[in-house]
Amino acid sequence: MATINTDPPRGMRDLLPHQVNLRDWASSVIQNTYRKFGFTRIETPVMENIQHLRGAEGGENLQLIYEVLKRGDKLDKVLEANPVNRDSLADLGLRFDLTVPLVRYYSNNNANLPTPLKSIQIGSVFRAESPQRGRFRQFTQCDIDIIGVKSEFAEMELINATAEALYGLGFTNFQILINDRRFLSALAENCGFTSERVSAVFIALDKLDKIGLDKVLEELMAVTSDEAAVAKLTAVLKNYLEKQDKGQLSFADMQEIFPELFASDYMQALQKIIAAVESSSEGRYQIRFDPTLVRGMGYYTGPIFEVKNPGYSGSIAGGGRYDKMVGKFSGREVPACGFSIGFERVIDILTENGFHPPVEAKRIALVVDPDRDNGADVLKAAAKLRSEGDLVSIEPRKKDMKKQLDALLEHGYTQYCAYRGDPNNLELKTLSR
Amino acid sequence: MATINTDPPRGMRDLLPHQVNLRDWASSVIQNTYRKFGFTRIETPVMENIQHLRGAEGGENLQLIYEVLKRGDKLDKVLEANPVNRDSLADLGLRFDLTVPLVRYYSNNNANLPTPLKSIQIGSVFRAESPQRGRFRQFTQCDIDIIGVKSEFAEMELINATAEALYGLGFTNFQILINDRRFLSALAENCGFTSERVSAVFIALDKLDKIGLDKVLEELMAVTSDEAAVAKLTAVLKNYLEKQDKGQLSFADMQEIFPELFASDYMQALQKIIAAVESSSEGRYQIRFDPTLVRGMGYYTGPIFEVKNPGYSGSIAGGGRYDKMVGKFSGREVPACGFSIGFERVIDILTENGFHPPVEAKRIALVVDPDRDNGADVLKAAAKLRSEGDLVSIEPRKKDMKKQLDALLEHGYTQYCAYRGDPNNLELKTLSR
Repeated sequence: MATINTDPPRGMRDLLPHQVNLRDWASSVIQNTYRKFGFTRIETPVMENIQHLRGAEGGENLQLIYEVLKRGDKLDKVLEANPVNRDSLADLGLRFDLTVPLVRYYSNNNANLPTPLKSIQIGSVFRAESPQRGRFRQFTQCDIDIIGVKSEFAEMELINATAEALYGLGFTNFQILINDRRFLSALAENCGFTSERVSAVFIALDKLDKIGLDKVLEELMAVTSDEAAVAKLTAVLKNYLEKQDKGQLSFADMQEIFPELFASDYMQALQKIIAAVESSSEGRYQIRFDPTLVRGMGYYTGPIFEVKNPGYSGSIAGGGRYDKMVGKFSGREVPACGFSIGFERVIDILTENGFHPPVEAKRIALVVDPDRDNGADVLKAAAKLRSEGDLVSIEPRKKDMKKQLDALLEHGYTQYCAYRGDPNNLELKTLSR
Repeated sequence: MATINTDPPRGMRDLLPHQVNLRDWASSVIQNTYRKFGFTRIETPVMENIQHLRGAEGGENLQLIYEVLKRGDKLDKVLEANPVNRDSLADLGLRFDLTVPLVRYYSNNNANLPTPLKSIQIGSVFRAESPQRGRFRQFTQCDIDIIGVKSEFAEMELINATAEALYGLGFTNFQILINDRRFLSALAENCGFTSERVSAVFIALDKLDKIGLDKVLEELMAVTSDEAAVAKLTAVLKNYLEKQDKGQLSFADMQEIFPELFASDYMQALQKIIAAVESSSEGRYQIRFDPTLVRGMGYYTGPIFEVKNPGYSGSIAGGGRYDKMVGKFSGREVPACGFSIGFERVIDILTENGFHPPVEAKRIALVVDPDRDNGADVLKAAAKLRSEGDLVSIEPRKKDMKKQLDALLEHGYTQYCAYRGDPNNLELKTLSR
């Protein structure tokens, strides 16, 4: 018999039982929390028609789509041409996020959905990225969205629910950072950037965490050549960062640093969101205004937010308001807002910390001799142990019993019972090293 | 704003909240049962390297693979050729079942897996079939497999666990049919078919349910031209079917109909499996030997089984032993056996019967006025209700309150609370028509 390469596809993973066990536990903690907040799970197909993906505001993700080949006559036709039109080869693609499918789903089904829709999505997404440590080509996203609420109660509930889910997973003292895209626009325009330059300001500022203020300003200068505006932005941001370094700034402090910008409705709403989340946190986690928070996606229109865990770079959750996106699909503008937990990041952190989900039942190996023991009696013995709530696996006896028991312990069994031919006489022994 | 087609891809589905709710309930009943039997969930990627899918014994499923286009330079290279080599366009494919990935997974990871491996897989599979009622191009499969047990205790446990899962879903009085591929081979050879003709006998006999005995024999005659063998098989099967029609046959009756065939080890083992499952069923479901059961897949090597629900055509679960398949991947033969619940079929039947999952908590709409109510107080009110175990959604008040309450009831809410500005004074009212 020939041996063949049995690896999963490049950049993708086989998950072992203990890994799935941790993921299932985390997924159920998150979903149970979200359900308590009135969210309900929905599902879309893993594939979308290719034009929906190519036409989406997915930023660099559009370069990373797995495209699915047409089939039968349709493919024949494409291949007849010389040269072959590359863009005509595929009719479907694998989703690269859960937001594009959600917006299509809402547009397609809104007559049968509650208004507002409060959705939970937890599922695989696919990106053909260069494989690197901790980044995979198939990974899980875990999103909640509220479609149909224009007031800041949507943001309050999304942030409250996400924070409680993270708290339920054992995270504490995390920081929720919040900003508003309209504040960022006003700040840029206030410094003298024209409105066409605003997105360039966003793109540069988004790198602040990684490359620092000096490089951000350098990049901005290279792109805009607007010395006066860059100088003004420099002054404002330096002032902010210096004060921020000395200790957390209050909203009142911020008003001094960014005068003129705080009178707007959206900054009033932002203050309300912060106050409400602060109150409901009861000190278990923090929320603060971060005027330098940008978040990458092009579709955000209002508040944006993310969660940082102390001691870890990057964010463990992120989201924001995207009021214009549904309209592009359905022809009717509907306010929308979402928050996504970085599921893989969360699992990585739990794993690094040696976390194990609580064990709720005994796991018993009922060790039998298939050549000798009566099947009906063995099933009866197993059923009897299960009726007491335990997990029971019938395991054929191996030659080296000591080795077998060690392996059972290693794979999560807590007890064993060497079956002695009588279903009414079962002696449980604890497995230990 | 332009309106665009928002349908999911052809043959695929958007699942509404109440549909996902039913599926999640069924999935958790099945998984909890399987866990009690010592099975653990594993996961493989949705995609596999294309050669693993094309090289599998997947029967007609091999014609239905969704192929994923190569990317970047690799695709450029393929497209440079004229004519383009169709088979070189894809490097990945979407899995069409969970058995091929499981065997690859086991071969790849067995050093880190328990022996035996008792796996649960529940996930999406993809087949580019002609769309038709009740058949979808993305659908859920729900498999358990035991890899590494050669005795009939594997079959006993798989059947016992699957039957208990179906019973937990509310199915009763279902029939488990069981046969053995080796019995079928011996029967065919006993009638005079050469061993090369045995698989033709399987293929024809597999259609007995759909086309009846006469057509089966016609087809067999056309393929084999072996009059004497077909005549002998006809006599044996007519005898069996006539007696079976008069009432269920005992194993002793069968021995009379199929003399010579019952002395083998595998028929002894089959009897043990039937006796053990019969005993553990305690009359809640039936198991019987069905000498005409074939099951389609080419990879089965021993016992095969399926579950039929009274009043429904087709099966709701099916499986069998496939001892040669792991060896083809890993170069080392390992016994294996699996049972798959037809998840979509089960959901269809539950839906047809108007089944609704039990409701475990109050679902409360906390109706607020976003212009007036204080966010912190509203979050506090919601948290208070949630602390009593209820599901609470903050819902902005709409102009037509009556219409809003009707809609909440329709979407599964059981109570509402019109918030009156005081988190300590919350009056719950029951929603009703």
